[in-house]
Amino acid sequence: MSVTKTLASYVVNAAPENTPADVRHEAKRSILNYVGCAVGGSRHPAMDKAIRALGPYSGKPTARVLARTEKLDPLHASLMNGISSHVFDYDDTTPQNYIHPTSPLASALFAYSSVNPVRGSDFMHAFVLGFEVESRIGNAVYPAHYDAGWHITGTAGVFAAAAAIGKLLGLTVEEMVWALGLAATQAAGLREMFGSMAKAFHPGRAAQNGYSSALLAQEGFTAGEYSIEGPRGFAAVQSAKYDLSKVTEALGTDFNLRRNTYKPFPCGIVNHPTIDGCIQLHDEHRIDPAAIKSVSLRVAPLVMDLCGKKAITKGLEGKFSVVHGAAIGLVRGKAGIQEYTDEAVNDTAIQRVRESTTAVGDPSITDDQAAIEVTLADGRKLTRFVEKSLGNIHRPMSDKQLEEKFRDQALPVLPAAQIGQAIDLCWKIDALDNVNALVEATVPA
Amino acid sequence: MSVTKTLASYVVNAAPENTPADVRHEAKRSILNYVGCAVGGSRHPAMDKAIRALGPYSGKPTARVLARTEKLDPLHASLMNGISSHVFDYDDTTPQNYIHPTSPLASALFAYSSVNPVRGSDFMHAFVLGFEVESRIGNAVYPAHYDAGWHITGTAGVFAAAAAIGKLLGLTVEEMVWALGLAATQAAGLREMFGSMAKAFHPGRAAQNGYSSALLAQEGFTAGEYSIEGPRGFAAVQSAKYDLSKVTEALGTDFNLRRNTYKPFPCGIVNHPTIDGCIQLHDEHRIDPAAIKSVSLRVAPLVMDLCGKKAITKGLEGKFSVVHGAAIGLVRGKAGIQEYTDEAVNDTAIQRVRESTTAVGDPSITDDQAAIEVTLADGRKLTRFVEKSLGNIHRPMSDKQLEEKFRDQALPVLPAAQIGQAIDLCWKIDALDNVNALVEATVPA
Repeated sequence: MSVTKTLASYVVNAAPENTPADVRHEAKRSILNYVGCAVGGSRHPAMDKAIRALGPYSGKPTARVLARTEKLDPLHASLMNGISSHVFDYDDTTPQNYIHPTSPLASALFAYSSVNPVRGSDFMHAFVLGFEVESRIGNAVYPAHYDAGWHITGTAGVFAAAAAIGKLLGLTVEEMVWALGLAATQAAGLREMFGSMAKAFHPGRAAQNGYSSALLAQEGFTAGEYSIEGPRGFAAVQSAKYDLSKVTEALGTDFNLRRNTYKPFPCGIVNHPTIDGCIQLHDEHRIDPAAIKSVSLRVAPLVMDLCGKKAITKGLEGKFSVVHGAAIGLVRGKAGIQEYTDEAVNDTAIQRVRESTTAVGDPSITDDQAAIEVTLADGRKLTRFVEKSLGNIHRPMSDKQLEEKFRDQALPVLPAAQIGQAIDLCWKIDALDNVNALVEATVPA
Repeated sequence: MSVTKTLASYVVNAAPENTPADVRHEAKRSILNYVGCAVGGSRHPAMDKAIRALGPYSGKPTARVLARTEKLDPLHASLMNGISSHVFDYDDTTPQNYIHPTSPLASALFAYSSVNPVRGSDFMHAFVLGFEVESRIGNAVYPAHYDAGWHITGTAGVFAAAAAIGKLLGLTVEEMVWALGLAATQAAGLREMFGSMAKAFHPGRAAQNGYSSALLAQEGFTAGEYSIEGPRGFAAVQSAKYDLSKVTEALGTDFNLRRNTYKPFPCGIVNHPTIDGCIQLHDEHRIDPAAIKSVSLRVAPLVMDLCGKKAITKGLEGKFSVVHGAAIGLVRGKAGIQEYTDEAVNDTAIQRVRESTTAVGDPSITDDQAAIEVTLADGRKLTRFVEKSLGNIHRPMSDKQLEEKFRDQALPVLPAAQIGQAIDLCWKIDALDNVNALVEATVPA
């Protein structure tokens, strides 16, 4: 059987009772983390602009955009959920392929669940399957695909939404093959957009396009049947190297959710070891920012590639600047949403330390590591070598830390009691009669 | 100035009086050919399925889908116009880049003009500019981009729609740069879809996505500023080789519309020399199909690559089968819409000749040529070498032939008098006070 058909058959025939308990728990952690990000990003100007631009073209306003008072049709709601949940670069990451997996997937699922009664157990199963489809396709084409300049969250994400919505729609195997084909032929998103609002547009559009792929397939709108493996299919066209065995091997027994990670800091994950180490130095030495003469970083070469920006003036650009990460860690001892605003980027103390920081890519440093040397005005040197930073797959955030992260993001948007209720509903999502209860819990009164 | 900004500035600042008369006439020919295709494809099952699947998610039904009684929001109408105008593979082609240029462009423009009052002269100017943007981006990445497996009509088409709608919206240069960026990051469409409904989905989605890119940019939704030329931009990511000077050189003086061609036959253009030659043999020798023993074709190697299908059972597959093209030319002496139905593909006489036909790729044969040898049951051999087939840029269809093609397609959909009126409005589109008059002229009473 072909790769695409094998994957389609798996999704169509999989039964929820075959999802192991630890995978179900990790799904809940992913969903909790996602909902917190969607609430936290719900008031970002990118959301206001997108809703102003496309809202007038929305269909019947039946679907709730998470944490917003507006309703849109579920396809547009998928798009908006994708923007809000990714706009602060605070969502989850599977380190083996650099996908931010939940945003394109859950954005479609929550929009669908806002207009169709979906039991929590069905939602979670569709989520697990969509996650698996997305991860496996990503694993097959990573790293060549990502290195070439594709934003893999957009390209792999559209398959996730198609598979998950297709599962809830009850597609046949043939229809699921078409849904994956329509997803493949819409796989898009360029890394050239990093640093602009268009980056968060990628998982949103992936959610929306994957959702519509499933709807079209359900009506018999046909697509190529070898969309992943064909000579002009996704893998061959969008990746110089790929290994399709990664799509199908151990399907149903190995679950990629086990390798999901959550960011303690709202920026590109490759900056995390640096930020973590700088916060440690800040906390341990109680450094006076004015006493910092210079900072020197040795980081993985990929960091310079992704996050080498130095002359920055906007909050969004800060996310792609490892020297900004070092500066906020050393000056403020934290790196939350407030450290990635336009104000923070232009704060004189942060700006001075940022401009006094140099970073070099060093092939002996892994993506999980960072070597930091701070020279103080009195000549003293403080050093820190970070082996594995918080949020790393070997040093995961705890359930409690994930709840704290949710609260930090949701506090400007929702009353504390409602935040508690939303967190609670995330933990028991698989027991809900109707997932819309969680959707509504995100909306300010 | 950067490539993207140069292109954006040109589109924003170009004045209609600088379009030469011959280019304006070619624009009318392109529009006439397009509207005929959209009318002809308006009842295809792909249209019914797409409207059934996505119609329920449409916004306010203010925009007319060409030649349909339904109205949808203008973004969905763009999608549907793109499907109908491309679904029979009968639309125009610029041979230097294999783009079908008008479908993604005019599909958005007619949808926009259905809900906004647009003067014909403004419509035509936006069309000329969109055509230029699309062609130049295509020229820069062809052939590597197409050879890799991209359906260039989708990938270049989204830029056309963004530029043209952005022109009508009166975007600033900065906004136009964002519109092109949002288009770039949605550039998609795999050749693996050829032979399925998803192929016609490409120009439709390109029209819809380009249109929404312009709407988002107008609201200040930002995108990367080097979306065409950046290290992770469209050209670098989606083409192994490219020449960006082709985007900007002679901008405003050399017009790609002068190199547009129109298909006399509703199938892949690489099949045309073969079909043309077989029709010539049919007409000259009045061949009895039953007397054909075998047929041997020598064609350009690209033909085998694109149209090598032999064992076919569906009308859509016939479009990608050069041996089917030979069979219908020899058996029926014509290759119209009726020769690419499921019935025609399964017609016993056509099927027998198709299965008796062999085709080989020969590097000495150009894309415009074909060598045909028919062996009859009595041992006689009939041969024909086609140097340049009808519709070729050196042997273009006349204005009258384009009108005939329009009529042939429109007759099953519209009364003859209305067809005449629609053709007339296409020829005088630049004098219309409101282009919606032409849109409405395509709708069955």
